[in-house]
Amino acid sequence: MKLAEIYRHLRPDILQIEKEIELQVQAEHPQLREASTHILKAGGKRIRPIFVLLSAQYGDYDLNEIKKVAVPLELIHMASLVHDDVIDNADLRRGKKTIKSKWDNRVAMYTGDYIFAKATEIATKSKYPQVHSILAKAMQEMCIGEIEQIQDQYQLDQHVKQYLRRIRRKTALLISVSCELGALVSGTSAKTQHALKMYGYYVGMAFQITDDILDFVGSERELGKPAGSDLAQGNVTYPAIYAMSKDREFYQKMQEFAAEPSRYPLQVDDAIQSIKNSGAVEASKDLANKYVNKANKMLYSIEEKEPAASLEKIAQYIGNRKY
Amino acid sequence: MKLAEIYRHLRPDILQIEKEIELQVQAEHPQLREASTHILKAGGKRIRPIFVLLSAQYGDYDLNEIKKVAVPLELIHMASLVHDDVIDNADLRRGKKTIKSKWDNRVAMYTGDYIFAKATEIATKSKYPQVHSILAKAMQEMCIGEIEQIQDQYQLDQHVKQYLRRIRRKTALLISVSCELGALVSGTSAKTQHALKMYGYYVGMAFQITDDILDFVGSERELGKPAGSDLAQGNVTYPAIYAMSKDREFYQKMQEFAAEPSRYPLQVDDAIQSIKNSGAVEASKDLANKYVNKANKMLYSIEEKEPAASLEKIAQYIGNRKY
Repeated sequence: MKLAEIYRHLRPDILQIEKEIELQVQAEHPQLREASTHILKAGGKRIRPIFVLLSAQYGDYDLNEIKKVAVPLELIHMASLVHDDVIDNADLRRGKKTIKSKWDNRVAMYTGDYIFAKATEIATKSKYPQVHSILAKAMQEMCIGEIEQIQDQYQLDQHVKQYLRRIRRKTALLISVSCELGALVSGTSAKTQHALKMYGYYVGMAFQITDDILDFVGSERELGKPAGSDLAQGNVTYPAIYAMSKDREFYQKMQEFAAEPSRYPLQVDDAIQSIKNSGAVEASKDLANKYVNKANKMLYSIEEKEPAASLEKIAQYIGNRKY
Repeated sequence: MKLAEIYRHLRPDILQIEKEIELQVQAEHPQLREASTHILKAGGKRIRPIFVLLSAQYGDYDLNEIKKVAVPLELIHMASLVHDDVIDNADLRRGKKTIKSKWDNRVAMYTGDYIFAKATEIATKSKYPQVHSILAKAMQEMCIGEIEQIQDQYQLDQHVKQYLRRIRRKTALLISVSCELGALVSGTSAKTQHALKMYGYYVGMAFQITDDILDFVGSERELGKPAGSDLAQGNVTYPAIYAMSKDREFYQKMQEFAAEPSRYPLQVDDAIQSIKNSGAVEASKDLANKYVNKANKMLYSIEEKEPAASLEKIAQYIGNRKY
């Protein structure tokens, strides 16, 4: 099953949100407009708006109110990608040139800042005042997550907990907030809002773990960047942590790499092979599935009207997605 | 007269705001906390909170409400400095090491993002809902200003209007918003809010023009960076525009520099001498004073209770400040 099939009934609404995002990044300054439009056109699954829409189905579905949170959420995600590309020195994102490489680091920095500010402005139009502080807090947590990721780079002896804490801030949080805000702006009960927030958190964890698996098993075409890129940059994810715990020789090779990456760059193909041989892919899938199950449990706990099928399917999809 | 004397009567309130800023940047993450505290301790005149306080005197002065806008305004200013230092590759700011040089570019990027988000969160506590969108729009304009500054670098043939438009966004806007929000949260009339917003705009223009004069006439100790730094980085400000229009030889030398700055770096001492000899300093002071006068005219138009003395003095001070 493809993602698009799961939310087919919401397709017109997603297109409207897409249009609204496009409209909102039409900055008055030509370079800013081009840079923003460029990152927008680079695509993406718009997973955060989709979660807002699906969660809003539990209450009084009002696309006008939904837009005022779905658009900022996607913009915050986009802005964080623009800033990540500066930091990662990345030239490609989803197979397209990054703003940083198409223009320069400075344009990327201020384009990111601009999109953050735009997101904030749109959120001010929501009639639910809590929206602002929920978004602002999420943005702060995401920054902490990014700094943690920098500090944890090339740290081979990190505990699984450290990895989980990092991906919680880096990815799970914004998906969790997407579900929470969808529930909030459709006026569901506090209990339902909490259940959907937790659902989003668990799905978000599964989403990032799956992403981290795909970095090793995906093709360059599917990933839009070479396989093993994360590890080559020193980002130690669950599959690598697992493989190092099972394969002493791989761990030692990784130590050499981590000690002096510029002198001993990662032998990416070998590393991928070691990871696959260690059973790390299966172990990571198990971990992702645990989170998928937890996510679905949260759905079952909701007592309000239940269009849960889509959210359940999306959780399953995320646990099994190929790219 | 020193700045501190002008607002002596507000000293306890400024200290409270200072404390609140310090409290707010106590991030839960150690590196983020250190980096934020570092930029905070690097000082600064806290000119934006001062303008909020002084403007709020026109209405019902309520420090608790004032804080909710003064703290975000100073944080937005701080965050923009952190991001500017990444972009400018600056190692010193106000004579102290920048976050970028003390840690690295990546930490500086996310520290800036974090402080922006924190500012947004604090503003959500204000009981005046307009505050959020005014701040969000100001942040967008500031980003456009920064991108304009990048594009205008090494452009010698720019019109004075281009310079004025750039400093409007870069500096005047946030000071204008400081005055506007001070007036707003103290419940003054729409007319007074507008007058103070315009006052802040004119004072902000004078402030930046004076800054641009000081770049040529200040000492390294006063400036916290070598004199002529702006021009050496290709930032063409009013004194340089004026001098080039009067001194053909200087213009030609500048053309050589601008065409290949890495090969023909600016002869800073010569450039400063040419600028001083051209009468650019006096002409720039005249321009700054024109804005000071416009600012004060706005004050005279206010019909509400008038504690205008301080704002008038501050405008004069800004037109004449030494550093």
